[in-house]
Amino acid sequence: MLADLAPVGVVVLRGERVESWHRVSYAVADAGGRLQHASGATRRPVFPRSAVKPLQALALLESGAARRFGLARAELALACASHGGEAMHVAGVRRWLGRVGIAPVALACGAHPPLHAPSAERLLAAGRPPEPVHNNCSGKHAGMLTLARHLSTPLAGYEQADHPVQRLVAQTLAEMAGVAVLPEPAIDGCGIPAFPLSLAELATALARLADPQGLSPARRAACDEVRAAMSAHPELVAGSGRPCTRIMTAAPEVVVKTGAEGVYAAALPEHGLGLALKVEDGGGRAAPVALLALLEALGALRAEARAALAEIARPDLRNHARQIVGRIAPAPGWPAL
Amino acid sequence: MLADLAPVGVVVLRGERVESWHRVSYAVADAGGRLQHASGATRRPVFPRSAVKPLQALALLESGAARRFGLARAELALACASHGGEAMHVAGVRRWLGRVGIAPVALACGAHPPLHAPSAERLLAAGRPPEPVHNNCSGKHAGMLTLARHLSTPLAGYEQADHPVQRLVAQTLAEMAGVAVLPEPAIDGCGIPAFPLSLAELATALARLADPQGLSPARRAACDEVRAAMSAHPELVAGSGRPCTRIMTAAPEVVVKTGAEGVYAAALPEHGLGLALKVEDGGGRAAPVALLALLEALGALRAEARAALAEIARPDLRNHARQIVGRIAPAPGWPAL
Repeated sequence: MLADLAPVGVVVLRGERVESWHRVSYAVADAGGRLQHASGATRRPVFPRSAVKPLQALALLESGAARRFGLARAELALACASHGGEAMHVAGVRRWLGRVGIAPVALACGAHPPLHAPSAERLLAAGRPPEPVHNNCSGKHAGMLTLARHLSTPLAGYEQADHPVQRLVAQTLAEMAGVAVLPEPAIDGCGIPAFPLSLAELATALARLADPQGLSPARRAACDEVRAAMSAHPELVAGSGRPCTRIMTAAPEVVVKTGAEGVYAAALPEHGLGLALKVEDGGGRAAPVALLALLEALGALRAEARAALAEIARPDLRNHARQIVGRIAPAPGWPAL
Repeated sequence: MLADLAPVGVVVLRGERVESWHRVSYAVADAGGRLQHASGATRRPVFPRSAVKPLQALALLESGAARRFGLARAELALACASHGGEAMHVAGVRRWLGRVGIAPVALACGAHPPLHAPSAERLLAAGRPPEPVHNNCSGKHAGMLTLARHLSTPLAGYEQADHPVQRLVAQTLAEMAGVAVLPEPAIDGCGIPAFPLSLAELATALARLADPQGLSPARRAACDEVRAAMSAHPELVAGSGRPCTRIMTAAPEVVVKTGAEGVYAAALPEHGLGLALKVEDGGGRAAPVALLALLEALGALRAEARAALAEIARPDLRNHARQIVGRIAPAPGWPAL
């Protein structure tokens, strides 16, 4: 199956009746850029958003910045994270910036309350406004600031498309995705360039992250280290209760990363495959359900992992009186891959 | 145009590129149940959710309960509300229940933090947990409790499908929608029965609310009073900054009500029409954009109202650094009605 069939669906059921319906497109590719499985709009550009953070972190390693500043795997995991702003995340980013000698005020990502609700409530109860370190992207930005320092370029403006940091990050992304020239970027939620890629290109990039044999030795080592960091610290890549963290905890052999607006990317080293999916309408609730349906169909999850992740694969929906009133599930018609 | 054409769309743009796409179905009917305009899946059942609150409030009036307990228009507006849990809403529901002699503990809707973020933050900062009166449906439940008292039935279990209150509310809904027998209900977010209706049926019910001439005198008076109450107190029907409130403030000649999972309903008395729409994927952000596109196409908004509502019709999207990074807008291809 090679392209642009009808997209598959994820349904939101109230009782046993469909209340809402999410259309999902996906691509599964190998490191040679060959599509192994695909459905829906796989050649149309999408914004991968945070799903490319593991790819954006490669330049931090490949450039020698990580080695020079002695970054630990925990810090590399934070560079790949859309974290919850929990104490472990915020303290980790502060410590990292402190060691490199960069003030947190240099972070250009803007502030938002921690994604982790109890952490947001604690901050509010303490009367403290959220700071840029609480932004889910603060680890990625710490990495970009570290790279700017390493390249001896000004820190100011590191988030701009024409800054050497963003040019290097974009070049690496293009090479991984097999794209000669990236389209003009839009602006991401945290202020950096948001480059569109097709799902086929994004899946190819993830396949090379999973299976970097054909890449240069430095790039290959960077890919191996990014995967190892994310697998070693799944709690830092997202946070308590979040799908990325729970999936990589239950299945350390896969590397998964969510992106805003219903994107998921995965690297499957045991299969030499990369996977990318997009929920057409941006509905984030459908993305982990679709991801697990695909990982199951690909045979990428062992039985214990499938059991541990059943609640993410088919989550129950409860109302305010805590009654179970429905569930989210793959729609009929997902192919057996 | 009479049925089941391709649904229209609402796009989420990042820069000038489509990031996400919401499919929308809609129906516009007259009080005779004739579809005047329609697109998408208008005969398939959807859950109208809170969009039927104005219809659920009719029995409160028609039964004589509102007159007997001296309900003011503000209280009728709260009965039709998905309110923000702001002070005006919470105090209004408390006062109402107090006058009828019902303890707030009788509310079966469950508790959730106020939808109005500053009110939720104040509650949290005060260390107080949310109570059922803060639930966006507490006014509807106060109305149902008042109806139970009026009917001399037990208050306990008033939210159950077989309770006389729910049977009367359901019978009124079926009659307004022109449905002989309602399908089996699921359970709504606040614990009451959630009956499926097609968009054509829901639009018909709204048309009869807008133009109740053909109904019994008591039902007609109830429809007139529900419309008058919502128009007189748009701030109570939703809350500060919310689309329903802003639309009815700018255009008191229309009555609009949102429902969860991307539903909107509207009664257009000047046109004798009812309108119902559903965002296929449940994406609430697309529903007000679609509603305004339809109201504009139908000529239901005067120039000043259109100007006042431009920000709802095509909202800008900002990132955490407060940059404008995109917008939500009707997709090309909406018909001129």
